[in-house]
Amino acid sequence: MKLYKLNNVKETELHTILQRVKSNSNVIRDRVEDILDNVQKNGISAVVKYSKQYEGLNSDNLLVTVKEFKEAEKRVSEEFKVALQKAATNIEKFHSMQKPGEYTTEIIPGVTCGRKYEALEKVGLYIPGGTAPLVSTVLMLGIPAKIAGCKDVTICTPASQGKVSPELLYAISYTGYNKVYKTGGAQAIALMAYIEKVNKIFGPGNRYVTTAKSLINSQESNCTIDMPAGPSEVLVIADSSANPVFVAADLLSQLEHGTDSQAVLVTDSEQIISDVKSEIIRQKEYLSRTEIVNDSLENLILIKVNDTDTAIELSNYYAPEHLIINTENAEQLFDKVRNTGSLFLGAWSPESAGDYASGTNHTLPTSGYSKVYSGLGTEAFMRSYTWQKISENGLSELANPILNLAEVEGLDAHANAVKVRLQNGN
Amino acid sequence: MKLYKLNNVKETELHTILQRVKSNSNVIRDRVEDILDNVQKNGISAVVKYSKQYEGLNSDNLLVTVKEFKEAEKRVSEEFKVALQKAATNIEKFHSMQKPGEYTTEIIPGVTCGRKYEALEKVGLYIPGGTAPLVSTVLMLGIPAKIAGCKDVTICTPASQGKVSPELLYAISYTGYNKVYKTGGAQAIALMAYIEKVNKIFGPGNRYVTTAKSLINSQESNCTIDMPAGPSEVLVIADSSANPVFVAADLLSQLEHGTDSQAVLVTDSEQIISDVKSEIIRQKEYLSRTEIVNDSLENLILIKVNDTDTAIELSNYYAPEHLIINTENAEQLFDKVRNTGSLFLGAWSPESAGDYASGTNHTLPTSGYSKVYSGLGTEAFMRSYTWQKISENGLSELANPILNLAEVEGLDAHANAVKVRLQNGN
Repeated sequence: MKLYKLNNVKETELHTILQRVKSNSNVIRDRVEDILDNVQKNGISAVVKYSKQYEGLNSDNLLVTVKEFKEAEKRVSEEFKVALQKAATNIEKFHSMQKPGEYTTEIIPGVTCGRKYEALEKVGLYIPGGTAPLVSTVLMLGIPAKIAGCKDVTICTPASQGKVSPELLYAISYTGYNKVYKTGGAQAIALMAYIEKVNKIFGPGNRYVTTAKSLINSQESNCTIDMPAGPSEVLVIADSSANPVFVAADLLSQLEHGTDSQAVLVTDSEQIISDVKSEIIRQKEYLSRTEIVNDSLENLILIKVNDTDTAIELSNYYAPEHLIINTENAEQLFDKVRNTGSLFLGAWSPESAGDYASGTNHTLPTSGYSKVYSGLGTEAFMRSYTWQKISENGLSELANPILNLAEVEGLDAHANAVKVRLQNGN
Repeated sequence: MKLYKLNNVKETELHTILQRVKSNSNVIRDRVEDILDNVQKNGISAVVKYSKQYEGLNSDNLLVTVKEFKEAEKRVSEEFKVALQKAATNIEKFHSMQKPGEYTTEIIPGVTCGRKYEALEKVGLYIPGGTAPLVSTVLMLGIPAKIAGCKDVTICTPASQGKVSPELLYAISYTGYNKVYKTGGAQAIALMAYIEKVNKIFGPGNRYVTTAKSLINSQESNCTIDMPAGPSEVLVIADSSANPVFVAADLLSQLEHGTDSQAVLVTDSEQIISDVKSEIIRQKEYLSRTEIVNDSLENLILIKVNDTDTAIELSNYYAPEHLIINTENAEQLFDKVRNTGSLFLGAWSPESAGDYASGTNHTLPTSGYSKVYSGLGTEAFMRSYTWQKISENGLSELANPILNLAEVEGLDAHANAVKVRLQNGN
């Protein structure tokens, strides 16, 4: 834990205090480049080789079979099915409102323009598996893909000794997709990009996965990625009205993600800082991922400021992936929020709600990228093109601006395409 | 020109026939890396140095002054002002319909979620200048930025001997922005990223500019770019009803852009191919950019297919930046179009209309990227965040899915953030 008291906010000081956890590694990058090259050259056999080596795959078949899906359905509990369905219903409701609107408009008589949306044709979803099968990520990626209308969807998830968690397989079935490869890491990303030739790869992962995604994205191919990834993070703004038990629990729920997770508390109350510290010590003892939390507690930053307006200013500078505003005046502060991936308002809105079940997406921009990127939405599974239909009269009306601007730009073949029409037209 | 006759469409064959013009250059990349490093280290003085060296800048002041804007307004013709205003009005009308909709919805009682959009805070626009001042690009970038609500906008444009074209300055004034640096090339991109610290850089440019943008985009900073850039391209589908004079003019208007521009004609009529060839020879003689066209004619591909449905199939494979459908059945083919940046329907819709004045944007995905990216729209100048406000009762309702899914994922601190609330709640 690091503790700071700020009387006024200077950008240079914030720059130092609010540094992200750095995680550059040339070793990982070199290793990932090898894997990508190898899969590009040798295809599926290279993927199988890596999966045998790293994940204990025990056959040459990477694809999950219909039988495996059926077995998974038998093995999951009824409670899980109900829980999954409740979460999925909320996520579906929220993401159905994100389908972008097509439109057609007559700009001037004879000139009709419009915009049309198409689902991405081939997409790849990466779902972390192993000891922590991220069933929630299946919903967060699979549901918007479905709403967008994506038909050809490839899913990769690492299997331990050839087995994928039944809950994960059940969740995948639930979204309606079924092309699932049992492979993880950089080789899974290579499979989606080079063998399945998907247009876009979505999903979180460890450093091998995110490095592979970033390398694929910088290659000159038609494969891109959802967004750059960094460690998960939360910033909590709390005032003296906040319950320190809740605040500590929210910070801990972030810190359990990984040793590089970051959590920031900004408050105008000294009391809250000291109470939250004690609560963290108390609560972490009965939680299971103590080892990770003990490490990531190093990345907990506690900041005392003079007022909640300053707290918002600081948060806008940091641009947190998740922002929890646990203050009496949460509604007023809402208007001042600019940069965050997802905002949680008031004492009863923990980040876990958005991570799993309230309906919003949990795939969000980290590392300050919310200044530029939006969190994942249905539109990320689509792309648009514009179109126009012009009549002879419409083109006559446009001739003046086209010919004039083309002349200024020195592009007379552009002007010519209009002139020949108006001269040769009947 | 290259001529092909295809009786059936095989993907491997298309892959060979429809190759893009390659333009990788490690020399350019190394040079650009030097420039970026130098500006990052030495700031504005490095930019001034490069602008003096490459563009004949004759002072240490890069910023366009109020006086220069006033002089520009006096020097441009009344006809130009009228033409610009007509084009701008159409572009404004089309892009005003692209502001993405915010929404708020009650997912279940006590759980309210929404999505909020914010303009990007700092954006950079690159406008090619020099011999071909791209006034149309000022409108295509400046107008959507304005509609999105961007306030801090930095514009860079190369000046020859310290002078920027008056038409360009007038167009910039027209959009309401006025922070204009007289510098181009990689140093301009470095200025926007490192000195102005913009969040996103928009606009076309030569290889130095696009290489700089791509390098900036792959760096771990909060600066991103509009889209990857390649040479401009058009695909024209024509049947025997098409006027070869129009078709030739459309192909030439693309080929005059640069020696690496590509144009493809796909037709079911042998007659059209031979007539268009003659027309190209005839028309290019009276156009001014003959040297460029003579070179880029190498990149003209003429393809005879059996029917227009096959032509569309081929176009969807190629995914052209611009697609012109000049056939009798253009409206029916429209439904089959999937991959393109912008579509022009019928004999009276030349690409020049969309390049300048009909209202659609001319910043479009090249090199097959329309399979993944949309053409530039107002939403590219914005980003969104989601938010939620949950009541105590709402959280009780969500507890079942949250606790269940968190347990499956082995994240008990996530569950704990809900449990402590439901236990400690009054």
